[in-house]
Amino acid sequence: MARPLVEKTADRLLELILNRGYVVGDKLPNEYELAQDLEVGRSTIREAVRSLATRNILEVRQGSGTYISSKKGVSEDPLGFAMVRDRVKLTTDLFELRYLLEPRIAERVAQFASDEDIRRLEEIVYAIEDAVQRGDESHLELDVQFHSMLAEMSDNIAMTSLLPVINQSIHLINENYTNRQMKSDSLKAHRNILSAIKQRHPVAAYDSMLAHIVAVRQSVLTEWFDKDLTIHGLHSVEK
Amino acid sequence: MARPLVEKTADRLLELILNRGYVVGDKLPNEYELAQDLEVGRSTIREAVRSLATRNILEVRQGSGTYISSKKGVSEDPLGFAMVRDRVKLTTDLFELRYLLEPRIAERVAQFASDEDIRRLEEIVYAIEDAVQRGDESHLELDVQFHSMLAEMSDNIAMTSLLPVINQSIHLINENYTNRQMKSDSLKAHRNILSAIKQRHPVAAYDSMLAHIVAVRQSVLTEWFDKDLTIHGLHSVEK
Repeated sequence: MARPLVEKTADRLLELILNRGYVVGDKLPNEYELAQDLEVGRSTIREAVRSLATRNILEVRQGSGTYISSKKGVSEDPLGFAMVRDRVKLTTDLFELRYLLEPRIAERVAQFASDEDIRRLEEIVYAIEDAVQRGDESHLELDVQFHSMLAEMSDNIAMTSLLPVINQSIHLINENYTNRQMKSDSLKAHRNILSAIKQRHPVAAYDSMLAHIVAVRQSVLTEWFDKDLTIHGLHSVEK
Repeated sequence: MARPLVEKTADRLLELILNRGYVVGDKLPNEYELAQDLEVGRSTIREAVRSLATRNILEVRQGSGTYISSKKGVSEDPLGFAMVRDRVKLTTDLFELRYLLEPRIAERVAQFASDEDIRRLEEIVYAIEDAVQRGDESHLELDVQFHSMLAEMSDNIAMTSLLPVINQSIHLINENYTNRQMKSDSLKAHRNILSAIKQRHPVAAYDSMLAHIVAVRQSVLTEWFDKDLTIHGLHSVEK
């Protein structure tokens, strides 16, 4: 099948999705109807759907139909981190992004979050504490959720897409990177951030997030050094 | 064909690529050899290659073979911005990222760039000025290159992947967003940034980049407002 036709059809299908105002979870018309709407063959539609599914815009459920994906067009590993060989350097570089972005996120949440947002945030802080107490490893996933939720509440579309990518990557590279001390420090830090946000105190929220990121970065990198790994390229760490 | 087998083979193929130290532009062995190395059928290899090609890790050139893609695993529209309906809000949100990231990038470049890096930077600054003088629209593309080059020189892998995505998106949304005043201001700003970097003055580099981003953000948003578009959700702009 000619690629350009498929790509053009995928673009037009995306346009149709946006124009009709479909939202996450909505079911798309069947191949036959789409083929009529876009005036192309059904096999072209099938390929175009497959292409948007690869981009995580659509989701094909066998035997049920095609739906708007909850992944909102963000692909797995969108920034190509799987291709980076030096995992220590990648970790440092990702923490540099967190260091620059997350304090501002917390600051904005303290100013703009709704009371309902804050209630959800409080719930996840408690859920993390519960998981840590039970020795349940789910606290790592919950931690990513906590930071992603803040990004979402900061009401910045780009942050909402980007933050989960950064934090998920750090967690994947540094499996089980949290020792007991780090866990207890993190819990305290999350409480501080939550408390600043509840008090609607943007400066305190900024500062507690900054302190949290700096502390976690330091712990993670210390772990790497203790394992006697190369520190080549780590010039964002003070020499 | 069973998806799990293809996905597992794609993962193993990526591992093989990393272990053998292939770099951008290298040619992969043919299907037959890869099938033997990974002990799967050739049709499975073909599907796995296609999957890594979709992720922009590999590039299939018809009649020539399969190569390591120069796109380094970064897909088009990796963060799903095509799905965002409110283009004004997306622009504001992307500028918020630039505002947080780019001053730090300039600061680091002033401290760490090689003389050769600075020479390349100077060249692109001149190329932008040339293009603007000739009334050539290529200056927009060169402007993205200038900022991407700085990200690369900051020696942060994540910034290097992310910055082009942000700036390319802003340019796509705001085609021809530069009026004459903005162009002349931008040229002056680029000169200032370059000059601070040449003087190895991280603070001045930070400040000139910050001033540049703030000025461009203001101009772009003013243009939108003049077009009388909705300013809903723009609470990162001072009320």
